[in-house]
Amino acid sequence: MKKIMNSPDTLVAEALEGLVISFPQYLKQVPGTHVLTRATPKPAGRVGLVSGGGSGHEPAHAGYVGYGMLDAAVAGEVFTSPTPDQVLEGIRVADHGAGVLLVVKNYTGDVMNFDIARELAEAEGIKVATVVVNDDVAVENSSFTTGRRGIAGTIFVHKIAGALAEQGASLEEVEAVANRVIAHVRSMGFALEPCTVPQAGQPTFTLADDEIEMGIGIHGEPGIERQKLRSAHELAQSLLEKIAMDLPLKAGDHLACMVNGMGATPLLELAALAREVSLWSKSHDMPLDVVWTGEFMTSLEMAGASLTLLPLDDTLRTLLAAPCDTPQLRQGVHHD
Amino acid sequence: MKKIMNSPDTLVAEALEGLVISFPQYLKQVPGTHVLTRATPKPAGRVGLVSGGGSGHEPAHAGYVGYGMLDAAVAGEVFTSPTPDQVLEGIRVADHGAGVLLVVKNYTGDVMNFDIARELAEAEGIKVATVVVNDDVAVENSSFTTGRRGIAGTIFVHKIAGALAEQGASLEEVEAVANRVIAHVRSMGFALEPCTVPQAGQPTFTLADDEIEMGIGIHGEPGIERQKLRSAHELAQSLLEKIAMDLPLKAGDHLACMVNGMGATPLLELAALAREVSLWSKSHDMPLDVVWTGEFMTSLEMAGASLTLLPLDDTLRTLLAAPCDTPQLRQGVHHD
Repeated sequence: MKKIMNSPDTLVAEALEGLVISFPQYLKQVPGTHVLTRATPKPAGRVGLVSGGGSGHEPAHAGYVGYGMLDAAVAGEVFTSPTPDQVLEGIRVADHGAGVLLVVKNYTGDVMNFDIARELAEAEGIKVATVVVNDDVAVENSSFTTGRRGIAGTIFVHKIAGALAEQGASLEEVEAVANRVIAHVRSMGFALEPCTVPQAGQPTFTLADDEIEMGIGIHGEPGIERQKLRSAHELAQSLLEKIAMDLPLKAGDHLACMVNGMGATPLLELAALAREVSLWSKSHDMPLDVVWTGEFMTSLEMAGASLTLLPLDDTLRTLLAAPCDTPQLRQGVHHD
Repeated sequence: MKKIMNSPDTLVAEALEGLVISFPQYLKQVPGTHVLTRATPKPAGRVGLVSGGGSGHEPAHAGYVGYGMLDAAVAGEVFTSPTPDQVLEGIRVADHGAGVLLVVKNYTGDVMNFDIARELAEAEGIKVATVVVNDDVAVENSSFTTGRRGIAGTIFVHKIAGALAEQGASLEEVEAVANRVIAHVRSMGFALEPCTVPQAGQPTFTLADDEIEMGIGIHGEPGIERQKLRSAHELAQSLLEKIAMDLPLKAGDHLACMVNGMGATPLLELAALAREVSLWSKSHDMPLDVVWTGEFMTSLEMAGASLTLLPLDDTLRTLLAAPCDTPQLRQGVHHD
């Protein structure tokens, strides 16, 4: 195992410090915790948004803390849910008097720990709602989940719910729009190479020189099928057809797409994949209104990518396009 | 070789299309070329900035096309200089009547082809100046260069010269500030794993399970020394001491630092490395005013990182902090 670190035991804590050092205009650390929150908090009376989960998915979730997205990100150890007391710290710092929405990816440990934290926060008088993202169409259950896994589609939930919260909507309204995104967002990924969890020291699976793993999650867990490497065109087709059938999509639907690198895939290849999504959407008469291409929800240094589609109505399109200002996503810039 | 592509022969052209599809608010392609230029051109009378080089370093250079940075990026094939006619297309589209500055990384092919393009543009009556970035302290000459190589420090040149050009400075002034950055910016990198050029199909070098290569460039070329893997702390010390002695730096110097991932290194590890830079700068009484952490100048899917230091005076600090709005770098956001 080769990693730039001092020790597997200190890597997450040191990286959180490093994120604050790198993005001081956005992030500060709640002292004594693994919670990163906004350097400039939201005004009173706005709904707060908290997300988090295991580390190893950077820029998720600290990269989305800032104006128009999250108020706090809670980091567990690599691929391990944060504990309820850490999530509780995140809820406390994100509460500005109008309640807090928890955006949780569907993994058993995360769902349980965020639920316990919610109960603890409610006992303190904080109003809390939870939404659970389950966008991965690859598997119905996995070694880490009951039901579908939450993967890159989570970032569209952060963006859209965060935009509505910034506008002063109520907790019920922000929860409702998050659930509308969750009802419609779908993703699927594949790996060219596995990743190695620092604490384990060994790759999570092995692939032959001409093999890929379809339907992988974001924790190095197995996919649904091992296949021969195929062209970018065939890979995109395969993922998009599976997603489109699941929704289902129809001609005329307007789409947002995320082309997400799993950690070790060059932007050169992700951009070539984005082109395939564009060709596919044109051939299916589904206008592609928004394309996000880059690393949004990674799995350490796994090589591969996931595609996420979200059909847009006017409300979702407007919220997706609303200004945001975070380490990873910045839009609606007004320059001098 | 595992890559998300249709063919090595079409990868770059398809990726350029994919970048425009992903960032239409920033980028458009000059028809029939490998030149990406601003979607909204600079006002007349401003100096234009052009950079470029071989592909495989994404987000360099198209990721820096936009307000406050470049006017055009010219892409060659992977790790291969763009031809003079392509660079000429970039100069033409970047000329808004006040001349064009070419920012060239010091590689023999790039320097030659950008020089020929400059002569062709001058024959058309366009005023052109060239600066050559040579920030890599690892080697004095290499298989690709006479003199030091240009690596990640190039992005500080884009940022600072681009900010001054946006303010309406003359070509001579923009050239002078670029040369001031070049005189002071220093970088050095290391690899944990090599990369594979699509056209070659084989890794550019091989490393044992416990080995790293110090002083690598950005084209998979050999470094200066093969070493045993060390801690993040020791790696940062080693690079920073070499850079600091080269400049030389002294206590009280204010610094900008870039912690640059080579392609396959997780942000988790880069953030941990950023923390080491911060500790080092504190222990040497050199305030770290700016830290950029992420992937700025990659080498395909190479694992590893480079560190770049730039001592700041008031002028450079102000220009580095000036607003910019590009696919990769956005700052000075005024949100609603």
